[in-house]
Amino acid sequence: MKKHQYKQLEDYMLSCMLDSAHDKDHIYRVLYAALEIAQYERDVDRDVLVAACLLHDIGRQQQYANPAVCHALAGAQMAYDFLIGHGWGGGFAMNVRQCIETHRFRADRQPQTMEAKILFDADKIDATGTLGVARTIFYKGQMSQPLYCVLPDGTISDGENDGVSSFFHEYRFKLEKLYDRFYTKRAAEIAAARRHSAAEFYKSMLREVESSYSVGTELLDAVFDKEA
Amino acid sequence: MKKHQYKQLEDYMLSCMLDSAHDKDHIYRVLYAALEIAQYERDVDRDVLVAACLLHDIGRQQQYANPAVCHALAGAQMAYDFLIGHGWGGGFAMNVRQCIETHRFRADRQPQTMEAKILFDADKIDATGTLGVARTIFYKGQMSQPLYCVLPDGTISDGENDGVSSFFHEYRFKLEKLYDRFYTKRAAEIAAARRHSAAEFYKSMLREVESSYSVGTELLDAVFDKEA
Repeated sequence: MKKHQYKQLEDYMLSCMLDSAHDKDHIYRVLYAALEIAQYERDVDRDVLVAACLLHDIGRQQQYANPAVCHALAGAQMAYDFLIGHGWGGGFAMNVRQCIETHRFRADRQPQTMEAKILFDADKIDATGTLGVARTIFYKGQMSQPLYCVLPDGTISDGENDGVSSFFHEYRFKLEKLYDRFYTKRAAEIAAARRHSAAEFYKSMLREVESSYSVGTELLDAVFDKEA
Repeated sequence: MKKHQYKQLEDYMLSCMLDSAHDKDHIYRVLYAALEIAQYERDVDRDVLVAACLLHDIGRQQQYANPAVCHALAGAQMAYDFLIGHGWGGGFAMNVRQCIETHRFRADRQPQTMEAKILFDADKIDATGTLGVARTIFYKGQMSQPLYCVLPDGTISDGENDGVSSFFHEYRFKLEKLYDRFYTKRAAEIAAARRHSAAEFYKSMLREVESSYSVGTELLDAVFDKEA
């Protein structure tokens, strides 16, 4: 790939992101992780991989506007149209499209090519470790969703039985379950090295919140004058 | 304090928070931390302390609407007016007002009474440890401010020299500096026990981001065909 070709794809990606500075950072981290994973695999078409990484989330705005839209399918179509329209060739555009279509967890749509597997893995790596925790909490802030849930009995839910989408819930149901779902060996290694820091953060935060509420509610009870 | 009196203050606090579910959780954690600290101090008026904790952030909406307003001063006045208007007595209302006025870091406005020092400390404890990290990142999400900054040379700023208010910047300039600024011994102990987890999170995230960019940008460079 020529540098000006990369720039063309990058500019298109940036134009699709609008004002979402954080989404842009995610794209570069996915691209960088993908290139690292690619070093350990044979016969990787790096041009397809770079294009697929840069463009994999360009359908996000469509999904924000209409939650029924799948950003992977929408983005794959947008990427295909853009590449065809800018003379990248039908085979190349189709390969990129396939990668983007299968980058989410979907039972009926799994990555087939090596480039698609690498994009999938690189995207999931960004949900592991401290970065995965930080991105999840950042998203909770954007969506005004809580960090944790207080149960009706006044204790703190560890996320296992939350009715709402708290950070603790997200950690237990998504972040914690990523680590054995990689296609490539290198991605599994990178993720494994990051696993401990995310687990420690969750445990430490749960400990802080639980201790605050259990000690505090008891002390508060003692403040109230006993009413006859 | 009677339970129905607590309920009156709590209801007023909740009515001032509007839809900010997370702010409400902060209030309870501050209240619980304050009651724990109070156990280790003599002559604490727990009624003043409970009222001051519940009402300490009720001026936030005024500050959101007009950043020139200080939520501590606005909230102190609101609390005073509310308490006077609901028959809590002038001396009590004045004590609560003083606590709320001095709960922020301000060189010219420092807590004088024991209750004011405890509120100050309890509020700062909520910015320590993993909860402090989580609250800061959550706030970045709300404000659409970045987690970190890429410097013009393509490397990652550790927060020391950010031009923008990234999470890394906030950690280095605020969160990291809290630990020796407590008035009470118990608060300093609670904070010290939490310090390690916050520092580890920051270091781990910096490591993940730095490694991603340094490895990735080099590999990306190798993708580009050398142009004549």
